[in-house]
Amino acid sequence: MKPILAITLGDINGVGPEVLAKALARPEPWQACQPLVVGDAGALDRARAFAPDCPAPAPVSNAEAAREAEGVPVLAVGPPAPMERPGVIDPAAGACAAAWIEAAVRMAMDGAVDGIVTCPINKHCLHQGGFAYAGHTDFVAALTGTQDYRMSLFAGNMRAVHISSHCSLREALAQVEQGRIETTVRITAEALARLGLARRHIAVAGLNPHAGEEGAFGAEEQRIIAPAVAVCREAGVDCSGPYPPDTVFRRMRQGEFDAVVAMYHDQGHIPLKLVAMEEGVNVTLGIPIVRTSVDHGTAYDIAGKGVASEASLCAAIALAAQLSGAPAPAERSSK
Amino acid sequence: MKPILAITLGDINGVGPEVLAKALARPEPWQACQPLVVGDAGALDRARAFAPDCPAPAPVSNAEAAREAEGVPVLAVGPPAPMERPGVIDPAAGACAAAWIEAAVRMAMDGAVDGIVTCPINKHCLHQGGFAYAGHTDFVAALTGTQDYRMSLFAGNMRAVHISSHCSLREALAQVEQGRIETTVRITAEALARLGLARRHIAVAGLNPHAGEEGAFGAEEQRIIAPAVAVCREAGVDCSGPYPPDTVFRRMRQGEFDAVVAMYHDQGHIPLKLVAMEEGVNVTLGIPIVRTSVDHGTAYDIAGKGVASEASLCAAIALAAQLSGAPAPAERSSK
Repeated sequence: MKPILAITLGDINGVGPEVLAKALARPEPWQACQPLVVGDAGALDRARAFAPDCPAPAPVSNAEAAREAEGVPVLAVGPPAPMERPGVIDPAAGACAAAWIEAAVRMAMDGAVDGIVTCPINKHCLHQGGFAYAGHTDFVAALTGTQDYRMSLFAGNMRAVHISSHCSLREALAQVEQGRIETTVRITAEALARLGLARRHIAVAGLNPHAGEEGAFGAEEQRIIAPAVAVCREAGVDCSGPYPPDTVFRRMRQGEFDAVVAMYHDQGHIPLKLVAMEEGVNVTLGIPIVRTSVDHGTAYDIAGKGVASEASLCAAIALAAQLSGAPAPAERSSK
Repeated sequence: MKPILAITLGDINGVGPEVLAKALARPEPWQACQPLVVGDAGALDRARAFAPDCPAPAPVSNAEAAREAEGVPVLAVGPPAPMERPGVIDPAAGACAAAWIEAAVRMAMDGAVDGIVTCPINKHCLHQGGFAYAGHTDFVAALTGTQDYRMSLFAGNMRAVHISSHCSLREALAQVEQGRIETTVRITAEALARLGLARRHIAVAGLNPHAGEEGAFGAEEQRIIAPAVAVCREAGVDCSGPYPPDTVFRRMRQGEFDAVVAMYHDQGHIPLKLVAMEEGVNVTLGIPIVRTSVDHGTAYDIAGKGVASEASLCAAIALAAQLSGAPAPAERSSK
């Protein structure tokens, strides 16, 4: 049976409803999963103006009913949604977005859905609505009671899992700790296993230029990173490193590695965003549920104009389905 | 008249002679410049086994004679070269490589040649030969009496100029200073002018994720980088920023910027090496001569096997010719 994926509509004043309607107008998401939109049926319906092939919304009252729905099953929870005002920061829309995320996470924790995919929210909008978290990922982590989660970015055969995320580079340096690296390698190995990859070789990046060049440009490789890699290898994880940061991503792109553990946000984000263009997917690893997200924001500047691309959302849905245990497209039977 | 470029042969036990013979077997370097090899004629001649179309070496005794030479003009200076031993660290080869660089730099300083292009050297090899510099670039800077030079990497329409180079990331953070950024922007603007680009828009990268997100992830953008950009704009330089590091290189690739000033080595090296593959060129900016270099090392593991690519050397020669004031290929008359 296809996994049920709860897809949160995000900020209705951003591009969320539009990219969702466009994605659900395509066959791939329906082939990969049973979607369950958590959000406002009216907003999705109006976004169908940009995607006439998207089926009409069909309100449902619980996750299991999604499989019987005729159209796009939509679960409405939380406060009533305001009318869309593209590009406007509306605290009422923020409160809805938060309620939808919370409902989706609860359903995933209860096993009612197999994973969640999130459309973009606007932090300022949520904060004006009384939201107390730094962002999407922290909120999801808190709802699942997780301390040790990791932000990662997947795009095709490139996967970067970061040992730290949204903090200054100076603070990120302080987070280069052996235990944190070991945990990240373990979390990465679990994710690659869930993806069902036959080969799961993890490259651990160095922190300094040339991976420190034998200590000449920094000692973290020798003192912290290499010992972490050794511990993980000892534990049976297929990993190696530390590698010079300026070629490890190129080597992954050429097929030598299946994932890179990155030492700070931009080390992984710069190369992935450069080559992924619109197919990048954010994945939160280390939490007890499957959660992927589009790799773009609310894009207020183009909201309501019909020009947003659904590519990242389609990729996020496909990846969530795969992480939920659905067979990868290449492994499906050809019936 | 075409510029004369002194091309140093580098470590004869690396891939230098091979990639040079292969490059000079192609028409483009000859169209762009008058090459003058500074090195050993015998080593180049033997490397022609991998590139039969490369003209035979023709010994010359000074730079001006290069234009009259029949074949590849080769200027021999320094100690006699030992016989090649591919992949072997030979201090005698290192001593030759250093002498060739020194001679090339002196000729460029004297105006006898219009620029230099360097084939790879091996640091360990040079150090065993008594060489006192950290590497190629530091040596060239010392020979030209330059304090404020900048390492940059060019590849097609992507250009990254780094405010610091070979040091730990921790030390690089300490080098994020307003004056250093301003100098780098100015040096970058000069280089773009030398290239003859009609548009010369420089993007200055932030240091922290999301360029600090208004101070939430680091204060350097607000305290240091933005003021530096403001000073440069005030001085008439076409620049802007600071931009989020994880999209600024993608935006340059898409044509929005002509160069990025990068805050540390890997910030620029990771994206450039990812997309440049073999066409990347190292350029030393801020020195009083034109100097480009291949973007790879001696590659001892494949030296003497005939499998090395001349792509980076060809790109380095083309770029040096352009920086020397030769019209860019697209701007040449079509006669």
